[in-house]
Amino acid sequence: MSSPQHSAGASGALIPVILSGGAGTRLWPVSREALPKPFVRLGDGRSLLRRTLDRAARLRDANAQGQTWLVTNRDYYFLSRDELDAHAGSVRFLLEPAARNTAPAIALATLAIAAEHGEDSILLVLPADHLIDDEVGFAACVERAQALAREGWLVTFGIEANAPETAFGYIESGQALPHGGFAVKRFVEKPPVERAREFLAAGNYSWNSGMFCFRARDMLAALAQTAPQLEANARKAWAASQAGLLGKDAIELEGASFRALESISIDYALFEKAGKVAVVPGTFGWNDVGAWPEIAAQFPADAHDNRASGRAMFIDSSQCFVHSHGRLVAALGLKGMVIVDTPDALLVMPKERAQDVKKVVEAVRASGDDKHIFHATVARPWGTYTVLQEGPQFKLKRIEVKPMHALSLQMHHYRNEHWIVVSGTARVTRGDDEFLLATNESTYIKSGTRHRLENPGALPLVLIEVQSGQYVGEDDIVRFDDKYGRVPKTQ
Amino acid sequence: MSSPQHSAGASGALIPVILSGGAGTRLWPVSREALPKPFVRLGDGRSLLRRTLDRAARLRDANAQGQTWLVTNRDYYFLSRDELDAHAGSVRFLLEPAARNTAPAIALATLAIAAEHGEDSILLVLPADHLIDDEVGFAACVERAQALAREGWLVTFGIEANAPETAFGYIESGQALPHGGFAVKRFVEKPPVERAREFLAAGNYSWNSGMFCFRARDMLAALAQTAPQLEANARKAWAASQAGLLGKDAIELEGASFRALESISIDYALFEKAGKVAVVPGTFGWNDVGAWPEIAAQFPADAHDNRASGRAMFIDSSQCFVHSHGRLVAALGLKGMVIVDTPDALLVMPKERAQDVKKVVEAVRASGDDKHIFHATVARPWGTYTVLQEGPQFKLKRIEVKPMHALSLQMHHYRNEHWIVVSGTARVTRGDDEFLLATNESTYIKSGTRHRLENPGALPLVLIEVQSGQYVGEDDIVRFDDKYGRVPKTQ
Repeated sequence: MSSPQHSAGASGALIPVILSGGAGTRLWPVSREALPKPFVRLGDGRSLLRRTLDRAARLRDANAQGQTWLVTNRDYYFLSRDELDAHAGSVRFLLEPAARNTAPAIALATLAIAAEHGEDSILLVLPADHLIDDEVGFAACVERAQALAREGWLVTFGIEANAPETAFGYIESGQALPHGGFAVKRFVEKPPVERAREFLAAGNYSWNSGMFCFRARDMLAALAQTAPQLEANARKAWAASQAGLLGKDAIELEGASFRALESISIDYALFEKAGKVAVVPGTFGWNDVGAWPEIAAQFPADAHDNRASGRAMFIDSSQCFVHSHGRLVAALGLKGMVIVDTPDALLVMPKERAQDVKKVVEAVRASGDDKHIFHATVARPWGTYTVLQEGPQFKLKRIEVKPMHALSLQMHHYRNEHWIVVSGTARVTRGDDEFLLATNESTYIKSGTRHRLENPGALPLVLIEVQSGQYVGEDDIVRFDDKYGRVPKTQ
Repeated sequence: MSSPQHSAGASGALIPVILSGGAGTRLWPVSREALPKPFVRLGDGRSLLRRTLDRAARLRDANAQGQTWLVTNRDYYFLSRDELDAHAGSVRFLLEPAARNTAPAIALATLAIAAEHGEDSILLVLPADHLIDDEVGFAACVERAQALAREGWLVTFGIEANAPETAFGYIESGQALPHGGFAVKRFVEKPPVERAREFLAAGNYSWNSGMFCFRARDMLAALAQTAPQLEANARKAWAASQAGLLGKDAIELEGASFRALESISIDYALFEKAGKVAVVPGTFGWNDVGAWPEIAAQFPADAHDNRASGRAMFIDSSQCFVHSHGRLVAALGLKGMVIVDTPDALLVMPKERAQDVKKVVEAVRASGDDKHIFHATVARPWGTYTVLQEGPQFKLKRIEVKPMHALSLQMHHYRNEHWIVVSGTARVTRGDDEFLLATNESTYIKSGTRHRLENPGALPLVLIEVQSGQYVGEDDIVRFDDKYGRVPKTQ
């Protein structure tokens, strides 16, 4: 990294680092590779990522520190930016070219923050796909963790275990520390249910939440000691990173040097081996939203304990959950069933099979179907498109272009495109012409013609595109110019 | 009826009469008021009605008689015609303006056939929504019934009972008759299960199939005796009927005189009271396709007894049935579940609740939703349209116009229409202009402009219509001229 663009914050200030990744296969068919779990929306329309950003901003502002860092895959940069909204000016992106688990992500975030805000900065690492009900309780815990971090502790947050969960790792607490913390005696992997019951009975075990708090200098020192190879490779990857390619707020990690990093969790790589590791007990309504029943719990129940997101009709049914996307879902004579409906895929299962949804995802993947990757609505840097229907020699899309955004200047060999504006105004480049298209107006782009679609206005532009021609595959596209760096440099 | 258009057939010839009605609420959401059960398609793509037409044609041809009669609601005339295909020249329609159960339908069919083919004609009444596996066995039974009918018997077909069914009425057989028939001792209403078990044990009870065979003159005489009011009213309704209004092959019953007929089944009105009633035992794989499990049985089972119509993925599931309409349906950990997926409504239930689907239909109706009436794809005399998407100030349709068909000459006050041809050729009338639109071409109809869309070619015309404007409701239409009699005569 050559030129830091932001001034360093106050020494010892709290800097939230959001780790936004994870396909969330147990939330299929809503979560997909193309729309992972952090982007799943709950009852009030806010995504899990947006909730995490909101939560981070409140903590950060209380600390008078101006930055939140978001570590995510390069592919999710534009999708993530759409979630920023009011946070747009205060979020920095660290973009990964591949998935490498939490240790590389945390090592690189620490290096970035040490370089830009100083080695005394205190990082608060938050997964982007958890829910926290009690934000006041959470802020109090963070304050305790921060106090311990200032004294050189690497702090974990242990969630009070209230059931013999087998889906989480456990932390055994040892001697009491100041600020309400405890020294960690040991970490235990996801246990079988009998061991989980023992932990619950023992009383000094808590769930490992995957949230951490530490000073940058202590993390770097601990990494050098417990995972020296990873630490050295992280420094190389950091040196090769480049800022400002995709956006002014983003640092991009370089492919080869990042891929050289071992894919390993920070628990394995560091916390289980490091010396000064503390746990702060967390009682703030934590929920990792791991599977559908946890999503269901976010919606109000009817008199028979049925819950719904969307249009559902329950007849002689109880303890069911319906997630619907516009269609009417009728449940007749069902008990404890989960029905998840999306425009192109539907899942039906009993609640107790919720942990096995990954089996479905694997089966879909094995079948060669791309339903595990794409949704009917696909996000693009400039907005979204939805394939409404596809048939022999035609494809129908609803295209929404964000204000002041533009598609690339492009050309198709085989397909003709008809554009009908249903709201907003479009600026169209067609060959050498440039003209405006108002609501209710339409135009036609013949195959072989260079063209560009822009939204020059302040309101979203919605248009219907009807593609017709011999071949209507997405790969019939030649890009000449693109605002979002999607043109190969050799062109 | 003033002028019979067809010559009378050979005296005593067999004339199949198909009764095509019944919403089939237990097959919701596939069957609806706008697409009742006879139009539901099974595995090989043929509808139940089409199968009945095929079956009737084979029997009829064996009898060298050129006509099948189809009694149905006026609203289903065009939809039914689409099913005729090769039968087009040999089917006569008797169109009812309202639903009045089987007695009025059979009385009027008998009057029509007596008038057109003579009182010695033998009617074979077949519901349009039953399946028969063994057509050879069926033809043999019909031959026996026909022999009895020639001797003046009113013949029913009794299906060998192989389970204590409570969804059917029962027929008790008495003394043996010639031709393998039996005199009917009595008819029994749908019994409770204990009585059904007794009937099964007794051995001389069979299920009432709703199929009948009789000579026209005998039916008229029996009606005059058992239901004189109905007979008199049927004669009045017949006298008021008119031929050739909707199509050359159709006789339309007049509203007021038809509505004066009592809504009653032929079993109640006549068979339970008449003197010379026989039953022919039927063993020909009869299935009344009353509910989803009977539909499921038409599809092959996998190793775990799962069956599917459409794209389904079964994981740790058994004895399930999935009906899918394009989308991927994943069943995880399910046993004995029925999942019926349509573009706008979805039903999930255990198999044993299949008889209760009408509860869902009632609940949907009570909720004021029109999902019980319309499908996303709507049949019209000229073809079909499918609403692909609807939003504020726009609506998107896929329109398919049959060869040589045309929409009405019409005008809209509030909406503009954009038409893009994706296959075939359109002839467009727009104001005073008339022009052809080839595949990949498009045009624009401004609100207030008279227009007409026609398919002048031999292949189906498929186009995308994008409606935009202040108001895009179906009722913003002024029709000036229509091939299918949909213009009020006062206009």
